[in-house]
Amino acid sequence: MTDSYAATQERMPELERRITDDPGSFRVLTGERPTGSLHLGHHFGTIRERVRLQVLGVETFIILADYQVITDRDTAANVADHVRGAVLDYLAAGLDPDRTTIFTHSAVPALNQLLLPFLSLVSEAELHRNPTVKAEHAASGRALSGLLLTYPVHQAADILFCKGNLVPVGKDNLPHVEITRTIARRFNERYGEVFPEPEAMVTETPEIPGLDGRKMSKSYGNAIALSMSEDETADAVRRTVTDSDRVITYDPAGRPGVSGLLSTAALCTGSTPEAVAERIGDAGSGALKAFTTDAVNAFLSGHRARRAELAADPGLVDRVLREGNARANAIAEATLAEVRDRMGMGYANG
Amino acid sequence: MTDSYAATQERMPELERRITDDPGSFRVLTGERPTGSLHLGHHFGTIRERVRLQVLGVETFIILADYQVITDRDTAANVADHVRGAVLDYLAAGLDPDRTTIFTHSAVPALNQLLLPFLSLVSEAELHRNPTVKAEHAASGRALSGLLLTYPVHQAADILFCKGNLVPVGKDNLPHVEITRTIARRFNERYGEVFPEPEAMVTETPEIPGLDGRKMSKSYGNAIALSMSEDETADAVRRTVTDSDRVITYDPAGRPGVSGLLSTAALCTGSTPEAVAERIGDAGSGALKAFTTDAVNAFLSGHRARRAELAADPGLVDRVLREGNARANAIAEATLAEVRDRMGMGYANG
Repeated sequence: MTDSYAATQERMPELERRITDDPGSFRVLTGERPTGSLHLGHHFGTIRERVRLQVLGVETFIILADYQVITDRDTAANVADHVRGAVLDYLAAGLDPDRTTIFTHSAVPALNQLLLPFLSLVSEAELHRNPTVKAEHAASGRALSGLLLTYPVHQAADILFCKGNLVPVGKDNLPHVEITRTIARRFNERYGEVFPEPEAMVTETPEIPGLDGRKMSKSYGNAIALSMSEDETADAVRRTVTDSDRVITYDPAGRPGVSGLLSTAALCTGSTPEAVAERIGDAGSGALKAFTTDAVNAFLSGHRARRAELAADPGLVDRVLREGNARANAIAEATLAEVRDRMGMGYANG
Repeated sequence: MTDSYAATQERMPELERRITDDPGSFRVLTGERPTGSLHLGHHFGTIRERVRLQVLGVETFIILADYQVITDRDTAANVADHVRGAVLDYLAAGLDPDRTTIFTHSAVPALNQLLLPFLSLVSEAELHRNPTVKAEHAASGRALSGLLLTYPVHQAADILFCKGNLVPVGKDNLPHVEITRTIARRFNERYGEVFPEPEAMVTETPEIPGLDGRKMSKSYGNAIALSMSEDETADAVRRTVTDSDRVITYDPAGRPGVSGLLSTAALCTGSTPEAVAERIGDAGSGALKAFTTDAVNAFLSGHRARRAELAADPGLVDRVLREGNARANAIAEATLAEVRDRMGMGYANG
């Protein structure tokens, strides 16, 4: 899908102009699987962008895709903690639940029902060809579950229930937008115009490296969670495997740990890894770790302070979810009623 | 699955005793795809049995599986007519909507949502092995759609949303009950006891032959719809291809048309095909057709008269569906709340 990703990147300046000119004509669907704590990678990769869209006046829906937690594992252990933690991070980052709808898809039955008609619009062969399904199946090392196989169709329901027409994606997710467009087009052809064909939107942020230089990911254990304390952050940085060469250089292939720290410090100080390396000079990895810890803790201090304040209100998160879910349900029910009507199943709308 | 079918048949006398002793301990889920008019095959194959269960005091849910209409065809054309016609036939046959819940699954989002967790409990390989999926895919002559592939899981949701524990089946459907039992068992093992493992129940009625001797089926055009007029019935019987041998004999392989008529007349008169053949003797197929027409029209006269009366009340069918759907929704929402709770997604129940 590299071609398509490049093509999407090329369209970005023009899309940005359209968003700035008429933010009200866009509806964004974005979100994540609540499989752990949100970390710096999420901040730079997506959350910052969501806040930007909110400021621009683009209506945004953030889905916590809780069922997708079990596409590649047995149970959804701790999903409630991860959902609640994510909501706190969203709010602390500046997302306003009155302007940005935060919801969990397990709480929106009418959204999930869209899976049924949508499944009739794709063949098994098309599901199999989906690169994300293939990659996640390979990574899981398990038998392909029915839920993982149909996951792109469920994601189409996540996007189309609110008639989302703009979907921020990384390289991995571009095929999902493609299959969503296919489903929207086929539905419209068979039953009449109901759904937009959503556009993909890629942001400029490169892949965020974790402390070990690999992509920052909960599952690699190389992430700095937004919710960590200053001491936990220091511990995580300290555990990074570096080397004994006192001259600090940015060399992702040869020195992944050192380079991961440099990238992290650079992102948190608005600098470049090379500039940070120059600044540390020959002071060694101890100095680099101290600098990185300071950089991260300074960068996240506002976020963490707001997060702690918000967490002190015990009913807040549930209230946000209840309101977000109610809003998502009202929209999903309206869309589903329209879908049933077009499919000749209007008797169900009584 | 012949073995398993035979084993199920062997269990029937004991099951019948348990039903008679304690009808309140059973909840039956049964139904059909609304792909056309209900016909004599439905009457003898299932509707009669549903009335019997209702009389015995077994709570029964009848699902009109409208989404399953599009498992093997492009659109659900005329689905509303077929749904409304089926409701009229149910009521005319003696099913009481106050005791037997009649509903369409497209109107019950919480039922459909169960598809998501259930899909996580089966592998793609298991879906592929399902004989009904294989057979229907082969019969459709089309690419296997995602909806047809996942159809057994959707059917498990149809059965388990109301914690149905008894499912009347023909030979073809036995694998669906098996996969439903598997899904119920796996869910209970992972998340705690929520679902019963439903039992299959086979009835003694043999396959109902159509007018041409093949299984009576809308798609073969060999069916006598319950809603036909007397003249339409006579026309359908007249169109049956017979032969010029005036001596009428029951010979399903050699004389399929003649034998189909004999079986139909026999079912409608509580006789046997052989006895009907003897009665017609050497009077030829004209006499057989006249006799069959009379037999069917006499047998269905009560049904058709009640059906016409019920059809004269313009709001009746929609009222029955609205009430049935409301009841199904209340039950589905309670089950889904329990499922979410067990899966740790209780935040969605606010």
